[in-house]
Amino acid sequence: MKKQRTVKERLQHIIFDYNTVPAKMFDLVLIAAIILSVTVVMLDSVGWIHEGYGGVLYAVEWFFTVLFTMEYALRLYASKTRLKYVTSFYGIIDFLAILPTYFSLFFPGTQYLLVIRFFRVLRIFRLLKLMKFVSEGEMVIASLRASFRKIFVFWFFIIVLVSIIGALMYLIEGEENGFHSIPEGVYWAIVTVTTVGFGDISPQTTVGRALASLLMITGYSVIAVPTGIVSVEMAVMNKKMNTDLPRRDQCCSDVRHDEDAKYCKVCGQPLD
Amino acid sequence: MKKQRTVKERLQHIIFDYNTVPAKMFDLVLIAAIILSVTVVMLDSVGWIHEGYGGVLYAVEWFFTVLFTMEYALRLYASKTRLKYVTSFYGIIDFLAILPTYFSLFFPGTQYLLVIRFFRVLRIFRLLKLMKFVSEGEMVIASLRASFRKIFVFWFFIIVLVSIIGALMYLIEGEENGFHSIPEGVYWAIVTVTTVGFGDISPQTTVGRALASLLMITGYSVIAVPTGIVSVEMAVMNKKMNTDLPRRDQCCSDVRHDEDAKYCKVCGQPLD
Amino acid sequence: MKKQRTVKERLQHIIFDYNTVPAKMFDLVLIAAIILSVTVVMLDSVGWIHEGYGGVLYAVEWFFTVLFTMEYALRLYASKTRLKYVTSFYGIIDFLAILPTYFSLFFPGTQYLLVIRFFRVLRIFRLLKLMKFVSEGEMVIASLRASFRKIFVFWFFIIVLVSIIGALMYLIEGEENGFHSIPEGVYWAIVTVTTVGFGDISPQTTVGRALASLLMITGYSVIAVPTGIVSVEMAVMNKKMNTDLPRRDQCCSDVRHDEDAKYCKVCGQPLD
Amino acid sequence: MKKQRTVKERLQHIIFDYNTVPAKMFDLVLIAAIILSVTVVMLDSVGWIHEGYGGVLYAVEWFFTVLFTMEYALRLYASKTRLKYVTSFYGIIDFLAILPTYFSLFFPGTQYLLVIRFFRVLRIFRLLKLMKFVSEGEMVIASLRASFRKIFVFWFFIIVLVSIIGALMYLIEGEENGFHSIPEGVYWAIVTVTTVGFGDISPQTTVGRALASLLMITGYSVIAVPTGIVSVEMAVMNKKMNTDLPRRDQCCSDVRHDEDAKYCKVCGQPLD
Repeated sequence: MKKQRTVKERLQHIIFDYNTVPAKMFDLVLIAAIILSVTVVMLDSVGWIHEGYGGVLYAVEWFFTVLFTMEYALRLYASKTRLKYVTSFYGIIDFLAILPTYFSLFFPGTQYLLVIRFFRVLRIFRLLKLMKFVSEGEMVIASLRASFRKIFVFWFFIIVLVSIIGALMYLIEGEENGFHSIPEGVYWAIVTVTTVGFGDISPQTTVGRALASLLMITGYSVIAVPTGIVSVEMAVMNKKMNTDLPRRDQCCSDVRHDEDAKYCKVCGQPLD
Repeated sequence: MKKQRTVKERLQHIIFDYNTVPAKMFDLVLIAAIILSVTVVMLDSVGWIHEGYGGVLYAVEWFFTVLFTMEYALRLYASKTRLKYVTSFYGIIDFLAILPTYFSLFFPGTQYLLVIRFFRVLRIFRLLKLMKFVSEGEMVIASLRASFRKIFVFWFFIIVLVSIIGALMYLIEGEENGFHSIPEGVYWAIVTVTTVGFGDISPQTTVGRALASLLMITGYSVIAVPTGIVSVEMAVMNKKMNTDLPRRDQCCSDVRHDEDAKYCKVCGQPLD
Repeated sequence: MKKQRTVKERLQHIIFDYNTVPAKMFDLVLIAAIILSVTVVMLDSVGWIHEGYGGVLYAVEWFFTVLFTMEYALRLYASKTRLKYVTSFYGIIDFLAILPTYFSLFFPGTQYLLVIRFFRVLRIFRLLKLMKFVSEGEMVIASLRASFRKIFVFWFFIIVLVSIIGALMYLIEGEENGFHSIPEGVYWAIVTVTTVGFGDISPQTTVGRALASLLMITGYSVIAVPTGIVSVEMAVMNKKMNTDLPRRDQCCSDVRHDEDAKYCKVCGQPLD
Repeated sequence: MKKQRTVKERLQHIIFDYNTVPAKMFDLVLIAAIILSVTVVMLDSVGWIHEGYGGVLYAVEWFFTVLFTMEYALRLYASKTRLKYVTSFYGIIDFLAILPTYFSLFFPGTQYLLVIRFFRVLRIFRLLKLMKFVSEGEMVIASLRASFRKIFVFWFFIIVLVSIIGALMYLIEGEENGFHSIPEGVYWAIVTVTTVGFGDISPQTTVGRALASLLMITGYSVIAVPTGIVSVEMAVMNKKMNTDLPRRDQCCSDVRHDEDAKYCKVCGQPLD
């Protein structure tokens, strides 16, 4: 009898699957609970809300923590490969997401770390997968991954640049103009080259401003580099996806692969 | 007799059409009136102008409101499908655009909401359509729509990122450095990652600045993502448009070309 | 005798040509003089320099003004089509560039308008043309021109957006938080959406900050639009240039064109 | 006997080569030492660290300086073409990198110039070459070089623009609003057009703000220019690279593929 599943099997289907109705329901409720609990933590940090509703929010916080603790226990119980789950990315996040409330009993303030719970929301991508959003997300990530090496080289260059400019600004401007140390100068250079420009520290001397101008105009062109990198990768990715799309999902299951094959020999997609 | 149209039919032609001379005139006058009335509202909010010319501006405001009310009535009267017009985007905007002045009789200050009138100016696109501007506008919108899903995934990632960074900054910097709550920290993170950088809140501690630096350098690369997305979509769109519209101008078919001509000698477009 | 040219003809060659050695020399000296004179005006505006060397700089300013006045007179004298020169872009700039010093005799302070002289430096492009820099410049300009319509539509959208947001911020934040009028709110919205973020005005209320966050995240994606537009135009332009390049200059002079031809029938380039 | 090399020959291999194990070791140790020494200089500039550990850091600084001096001497000794090394880019950097500590004996403060040492880290690219990172770096640099001319024209335009806007702002805003001189106005214009926006100087008058708005919206579109330039160059470069390097990995030729295989089953690369 197919229907005669044990409780554990049913739990597995609800918790770890994502293409049946109860599993989707479970995920949706879970995501709603996560967003709610994160909102509660955020609101609790606002002075006047904490004063007025601190008690209620504290109770809600504990409610969600107990809920998520139970959920974690259920996951542990239902998981086929317990150790693998515990050490997986989601397993660690799930565990870290319940700790802060317990910790806050001993170390007040640590409950704000609960926002780490927000990472759990990334599970939403599992749902999005079903809503056909995933190819978009995958493309963005694939483009970033393909660009990573070039952007790494670019970052390295930026770090060298801001270090030297930061040191020069410290020498030129000095403590009286807010540049108290080289690391502070480097921080200022980062704030400037990324065009954020807080303005809490800003050059006052003529030479300092001339150097800053140079840095800004350079940064202006430099900002073009990662944009160019990612744009190109995306264009390549886009072309590939449009070409691969029709055979993306089907060929791999229809074709007989060698036992040692890691990639589909027809479409080049990785096999499981 | 074709000329023997009723008043209602004539109104329809003037108000709802946009490819006859009187209809174009009507639209141009309307747009001029809208821009003028919005300018009046804006100027009226400036202290010294309000003091000096408040009375005149108040009169002008009422003049435009009455004008637009009459126009709305005429539209209602002339419309073939009244309910459809009332519930359409432009119908709602047209209605909302006359309300604030009447409301301001009971609730002073609400007249500033009149700037919503500015939305009415979007009708200008109807005119632009005739001026060949529309394909440009359509392309921009089509690119944005095609990019929407990818940018949605991107926004989701940004929201998770700024939430976690915002909470961390609240813990690290604390109230004494201007981070009064997690939402305020999140606001700061948004200001920073978008490279706006007001500087009304800015990190003071070493750890906070290190985290801010990380956020800024990340943001620097992240800013490349939507740019890449839209650029790719635009390139695709551009190609498609050029293929769909093999020849934009008509001169080439009206002119007699030499047999060996490869380009139109009037407009320089390539010939087949 | 070819060498028996009048003084006027010689002047014409030196002043208006740019592919002979004396003409190039003249242009280089002129550009150096312009840059020097602009630098003098800039330095003269600095307090301590004005106090210490005001007299010298004043003399130098007059020296350059007399020089440029003489040059203008010579241009007038040497020009074949005097009226055309006087009403041309460079003719107007040349004239405006000498006025401020004379004006400053009657209206102190106006001499700073001399920086308009800097526009004269655009003549440098005539020199660059010879140094093969011009195709680069032309491409940038052609891309911008091709993008103009799309960017116009984009600007229109931005103006409507910042007007509405600016009015809302004025209502939400009010005068006590630095938003003294709707135009000031619009100014703040422009500062924010362009990611400049001076921070002289910044929202203090929760609702205001939420709206600002929305504006910033939107702006973050919106910044991608003109970038995408220009990138696409540049790619198209680049392709066209690479394809056209070999026959760009030569075909038009080798082919016999009809008398009414405005564009070369072989390569599609405009004829003179 | 191949092994019977002199000390000098061995040194040559270790110091100037980079594809043998001892040479790689040498480079890695060197880079670690450089990063460490730069970190020490940076930390020494922080007030409380200098007070607490100034003595230790001073000793470490001298240790590294002596080390690098010895290394420089060894390089000189081992170099086959001494003069060429001394006048090469790395030779000059190596020399400048040891000077500041000695100088600081006579001129206190100059030791901070030691950050120039960071340039030595660029040697890391020699190592990266072996780690297949180099093609990425080369591509970024090649794109920037190919874009240089266009960006040069662009910079020239920006300089003319900010000069004129800077002078106008000085005239409009004046000293009472923080614009003390034209160069300061130009500095402000650069800060604004690059969207950095420190906010230490910001326009207060209506006309000044209107001009600033114009500058910001223009800058917003102008920022698209270098991005477009670099993106196009990168796309061209990318295409070229992919054509020049038909297959990056070697696995595909070492593995036995099925006759009907279109993609390598080991790495997923397309086969011919």
